[in-house]
Amino acid sequence: MRTRATAFAPASCANVAVGFDLMGFALQAVGDHVTVSRIEEPGVVRIAAIEGLEGLPLRPEENTAGAGLLMMAKKLALPFGFEVRIDKNIPVGSGLGGSASSAVAAVVAGNALLDTPFEKLDLLPFAAEGERVASGALHGDNVAPALLGGLVLVRAIDPPEVIDLPVPKGVTVAVVLPKLRIDTKEARKILSPELSRKLWIEQSAHLAGTLVALFRGDVELLRRSFHDVVIEPQRAQLLKGFFPVKKAALDAGAIGCSISGSGPAVFAFAKNKDEAEKVMIAMRDAFEREGVEVFGSWTSPLDAKGAEIVDETSKVKP
Amino acid sequence: MRTRATAFAPASCANVAVGFDLMGFALQAVGDHVTVSRIEEPGVVRIAAIEGLEGLPLRPEENTAGAGLLMMAKKLALPFGFEVRIDKNIPVGSGLGGSASSAVAAVVAGNALLDTPFEKLDLLPFAAEGERVASGALHGDNVAPALLGGLVLVRAIDPPEVIDLPVPKGVTVAVVLPKLRIDTKEARKILSPELSRKLWIEQSAHLAGTLVALFRGDVELLRRSFHDVVIEPQRAQLLKGFFPVKKAALDAGAIGCSISGSGPAVFAFAKNKDEAEKVMIAMRDAFEREGVEVFGSWTSPLDAKGAEIVDETSKVKP
Repeated sequence: MRTRATAFAPASCANVAVGFDLMGFALQAVGDHVTVSRIEEPGVVRIAAIEGLEGLPLRPEENTAGAGLLMMAKKLALPFGFEVRIDKNIPVGSGLGGSASSAVAAVVAGNALLDTPFEKLDLLPFAAEGERVASGALHGDNVAPALLGGLVLVRAIDPPEVIDLPVPKGVTVAVVLPKLRIDTKEARKILSPELSRKLWIEQSAHLAGTLVALFRGDVELLRRSFHDVVIEPQRAQLLKGFFPVKKAALDAGAIGCSISGSGPAVFAFAKNKDEAEKVMIAMRDAFEREGVEVFGSWTSPLDAKGAEIVDETSKVKP
Repeated sequence: MRTRATAFAPASCANVAVGFDLMGFALQAVGDHVTVSRIEEPGVVRIAAIEGLEGLPLRPEENTAGAGLLMMAKKLALPFGFEVRIDKNIPVGSGLGGSASSAVAAVVAGNALLDTPFEKLDLLPFAAEGERVASGALHGDNVAPALLGGLVLVRAIDPPEVIDLPVPKGVTVAVVLPKLRIDTKEARKILSPELSRKLWIEQSAHLAGTLVALFRGDVELLRRSFHDVVIEPQRAQLLKGFFPVKKAALDAGAIGCSISGSGPAVFAFAKNKDEAEKVMIAMRDAFEREGVEVFGSWTSPLDAKGAEIVDETSKVKP
């Protein structure tokens, strides 16, 4: 019987311009590792160590990696407990789904220790519970892609209903994370609780156009449709340099560009990996011209893999 | 050279539960005929006769069939004019796109008289102008399906961008028109100019689920997604018997049911023609139990044909 497992879960971009609270995609190469071990105390979850970040809560019910495992232990009335070691590589408040990554990696690792493991999709409610303690809201647009990979539409969390969306061949993401911190809860508070019917219709046309473009592999329709006229204009105010960075991405050939989650990370879609590299450099340069330092930047296929169990010795620092 | 042409354009259902102001589909078997003849006076449009309905405006700039032809005559600086005879089979204020049907049939017939006819899609701005004089708003969710047929998503009118959506094999529409009249302009005025972010997200999930269901041919996903939580609850207040009729449709096996345009017609999707007949009867019976007389009811494949030139002698009364 397995008594210890390590899982990797990727970072992710939520909202995806047209799918606020509904859509997200996984980012290859950057993410968190969580190692979970069985301990004897039934139902107990103990956070033994957090590496890579300071100041995260050690009480399991307040910790994204702990809360999902607590829910799992309680729901299954497990005769054992979990000890958790978290290795964080995604900064807090980056807009790259760091909480979701830890929450997902924890439940995927914990699941590997069960006598009768869940199907991957059925881990979604546990991971979402984990993320909820960090973000204050229960939605799946980060946890679902971190768990399952790819570009997904989350229609429901419990019971889970996640739709894997097709991705035009070759489309690659460029992501740039500036050295700014945006608090997820604060970023949600500034949003208007209402929107006009006119903006709703315009945004619905963009959502519909984007989905048709994905199913048809029509990159030019994607370019015409990939706009957020509701949330992005509100959140851009919190994000120094966003508009020049977006312009730089589009000028460099990006299909579309928007804020990842609540920011400050900014992502763009490009036709292929070479274009994505160019777009990434253009975005980085634009942030720096605006006097904003860049913490990191990445490219990733839009159909990146989701969370998986890894050999503990295979952990690699980014 | 052709000097006279008759066109048929079908009735249509706009909004389609999840695509307010954006989506519509054509209804086979019921629609308007318009006959257009060349006359010598350049740029003149004359409404010579309207059959089937009384009280419609004869001034061409106020008439849905006249306004589109006027725009065409002006834009092309035609050296001739048009005389127009309209044969209406769709009641005014029915929610079945009667204005759009006349507007589309008029420009399709007029187009057949041009030395260099437009492509069908490029007639959309003219037809939309025709419908605007009746509905007071410029949108294409009735004119586009009446012109092109099928289930369409209208992203733009001028220049036109219309997306033909795939339809799961066999899906058939049942439509029931009660003897109630709802004024389109009034029905728009009662709508709240704003909606909550929460409802927007919920409705976006339904729109996205519906589009995915159409592309995948997934009738069960369509059933879970085909809901209007924004407009239908507001418009149902104007439509006596709507909720019992909807319940009857769903109880009879309908995939989904909503108000056609601004009503009072109610439509439902069913898996095939036999099911659609059952659903149609259940809806009719439910209206009558509510004390609402039924004017007419139809079934139609969801991939019905759009407008076409017909031999004048082939006109058939419904």
